[in-house]
Amino acid sequence: MTERDAARRTAEVIAIGSELLGSTRLDTNSLFISEQLSSIGIVLQAKSVVGDDRDAIAEHCSGALTRAGVVILTGGLGPTDDDLTRDAVAQVTGLPLVEHPDIVRRIEERFAKRGMRMPEVNRRQALVLRGATVLENANGTAPGQWLDHHGRLIALLPGPPREMRPMLAALCAGPLAARAGLERIHRTSLFVTGRSESHVEEAVQPIYAPWRTAQPPIETTILATPGQIELHLSLSSADPVLARQTLERAASALAEALGRDVFSTDGRAMEEIVGALLRERGLTIAAAESCTGGLLMSRLTDVPGSSAYVVGGVVSYSNDVKASTLHVPADQLREYGAVSEPVAVSLAEGVKAVTGAQIAVSITGIAGPDGGSEQKPVGTVVIAMVDPSGRAKVRTFRFPGGRTQVRFHATQAALEMVRRHLLFDESPAR
Amino acid sequence: MTERDAARRTAEVIAIGSELLGSTRLDTNSLFISEQLSSIGIVLQAKSVVGDDRDAIAEHCSGALTRAGVVILTGGLGPTDDDLTRDAVAQVTGLPLVEHPDIVRRIEERFAKRGMRMPEVNRRQALVLRGATVLENANGTAPGQWLDHHGRLIALLPGPPREMRPMLAALCAGPLAARAGLERIHRTSLFVTGRSESHVEEAVQPIYAPWRTAQPPIETTILATPGQIELHLSLSSADPVLARQTLERAASALAEALGRDVFSTDGRAMEEIVGALLRERGLTIAAAESCTGGLLMSRLTDVPGSSAYVVGGVVSYSNDVKASTLHVPADQLREYGAVSEPVAVSLAEGVKAVTGAQIAVSITGIAGPDGGSEQKPVGTVVIAMVDPSGRAKVRTFRFPGGRTQVRFHATQAALEMVRRHLLFDESPAR
Repeated sequence: MTERDAARRTAEVIAIGSELLGSTRLDTNSLFISEQLSSIGIVLQAKSVVGDDRDAIAEHCSGALTRAGVVILTGGLGPTDDDLTRDAVAQVTGLPLVEHPDIVRRIEERFAKRGMRMPEVNRRQALVLRGATVLENANGTAPGQWLDHHGRLIALLPGPPREMRPMLAALCAGPLAARAGLERIHRTSLFVTGRSESHVEEAVQPIYAPWRTAQPPIETTILATPGQIELHLSLSSADPVLARQTLERAASALAEALGRDVFSTDGRAMEEIVGALLRERGLTIAAAESCTGGLLMSRLTDVPGSSAYVVGGVVSYSNDVKASTLHVPADQLREYGAVSEPVAVSLAEGVKAVTGAQIAVSITGIAGPDGGSEQKPVGTVVIAMVDPSGRAKVRTFRFPGGRTQVRFHATQAALEMVRRHLLFDESPAR
Repeated sequence: MTERDAARRTAEVIAIGSELLGSTRLDTNSLFISEQLSSIGIVLQAKSVVGDDRDAIAEHCSGALTRAGVVILTGGLGPTDDDLTRDAVAQVTGLPLVEHPDIVRRIEERFAKRGMRMPEVNRRQALVLRGATVLENANGTAPGQWLDHHGRLIALLPGPPREMRPMLAALCAGPLAARAGLERIHRTSLFVTGRSESHVEEAVQPIYAPWRTAQPPIETTILATPGQIELHLSLSSADPVLARQTLERAASALAEALGRDVFSTDGRAMEEIVGALLRERGLTIAAAESCTGGLLMSRLTDVPGSSAYVVGGVVSYSNDVKASTLHVPADQLREYGAVSEPVAVSLAEGVKAVTGAQIAVSITGIAGPDGGSEQKPVGTVVIAMVDPSGRAKVRTFRFPGGRTQVRFHATQAALEMVRRHLLFDESPAR
């Protein structure tokens, strides 16, 4: 591969938006872009965030064009005065911006569908660099565009992820694939729950260490995210069959070492995994939630098609609702408290009876920051499950972190309890 | 302020590390750096991530030095072959690297404390640019360093946050404070719902346009996030009282133009605003959710202390639960369908009766991707609310976007309906 070829296969990303330079927001589009590019063998070599300033955008764009074969700009394609990406790239390339009447019409139609007229400012979104190819936006008003500029590919994509992603996919399938060679990055991943990052590392490090120097080498990354540890394996190869086989062998070796704690080997989230199991077995589920306040059901129903197995549930935030709606005996609440194993079982039994679901789960706990005690500190969560035959399982957990972490961990553990019941007929080990 | 002075108060951050260019990790140090700098009146104008490549680091560093008064590099100060920040900055500045025996001694001591001898590679961490000031590292082996290079301040800081942060604090208290002068950045924001970004822009552009050239100028950014449009105002001034007054006047002018659609003027999210109103008035709330499947209650209970006003609710995903738990008349479901105004009102009345809450809200709709029809396409959502006196309000919406967007928009519109009822005794206008 010549140096010129190598440069063709490098990319830089420039995210535009002053809000991305503050202390609260990060550019997350670049993660998706990096992954997509690397899957077709293009390497992201640098990325930048620039504010809504035409000269600054132009300077960073010029700099990137001297280094990389592909320059992708995201954001700054809106209709307002501080959307300056189009102007900046026009300045850098010396190409004029031309209004496309068909884009104006499409934007007008989009507004009309919602019974609104197009504000005049949106006309700006129909400006396209002369010679650029328009990328249609099915999910918003700002079209994207790309052009070949003296052998470099420049793409302007909108900032909102759901608008940007389909356009990037189109680029990767089309003009970018043509630039890439035969080498592709192949990937696989394993998601694990119920173990800490260092316990996962301890179990798998001796297995993956030799892979780094193998032929072809396999790169392994361990990533801790709320409620799960992710193992990402990747491999660069021009032979897709060999790559797939090598990665499968590697993933199997890791899965064997981690046993039942591996819940996903294809990138699906826990709620998708549990949903697919319920659907396969023709089972329905309901939930009674206290401290998680609807988050478990929200995760379950986030999955398209979940109405096939989610019946519904009750958020019993107050003790009154626990007693009145879910028929938890008042003396149980008095004697053991709302965060207790007997009450958790009654909640699950209650929501099963009320909704008619075959499987019922309940979560009751102390998410914090207040409400903890010496016996039941913040993070104490009791989770129960009742199976189709009416058998109950219950466990008390102590989750780390603040309110958001405790709530998420609790829903993850509840889903894991259902998964283990469906696959192994057991409660989760810890 | 002269242009030269202005440039002194701008900064760029360069994060170094190939692992920050993949699809799983982000540079989060820059958030902390942005906040610290802005608190002393230095504006972060761009940031970049560069891999472990000496020439690439040097190029980005040179570029930043042509634009900003302060250039902060984080990471790449470790002891290994791919830690190249020191070498890159030496190349850019033309300054030689000098080994400091006292740093070598300190690193040796650090290892000795753990009963180990210092590996020879760590000697590299004692290399300091000639003339630079060393920043001691209490939490690791890599010291930081900073220097004044022709009036620009260059700082090299380690990547791990707990090592970087104390050094940055020292810089902000010392050499950076001296550059910053008395000017500070002051900020305020307004959040708007129920209008599109361009409709907000249309309403406020004539108001804020003259501020850009006013003395002191006010910078205005409009940001569309799911369910809300955010207006961010900022102002650089040495007079905190004047700054506060100017921003308050500006925010009031925008708020007047946007009227009741402004729901937050202090950065609080919709669920916090509604929660605070409910708490103030001593009211309780419950929800019946169909297509949002618990997301509304999850948002309400995400707020610490929400148990004071959230009673609970029912997720009535199936029609059976709508009928059995919430007593929605079967003939209503048959005649109008689950996504209809009569059913929405019955759901709200049902959950009010079942939970005993004073205010009840219901959401029923088609989140997609399936389930839409010509009369009721995906995105059709009906929201009802019953007030403490039993009066019902109901409205049918058509939300744009995919499943996740429709679900979020629906919860936002439901919360907005409650807010408008509590503040203005009205249903939301659109």
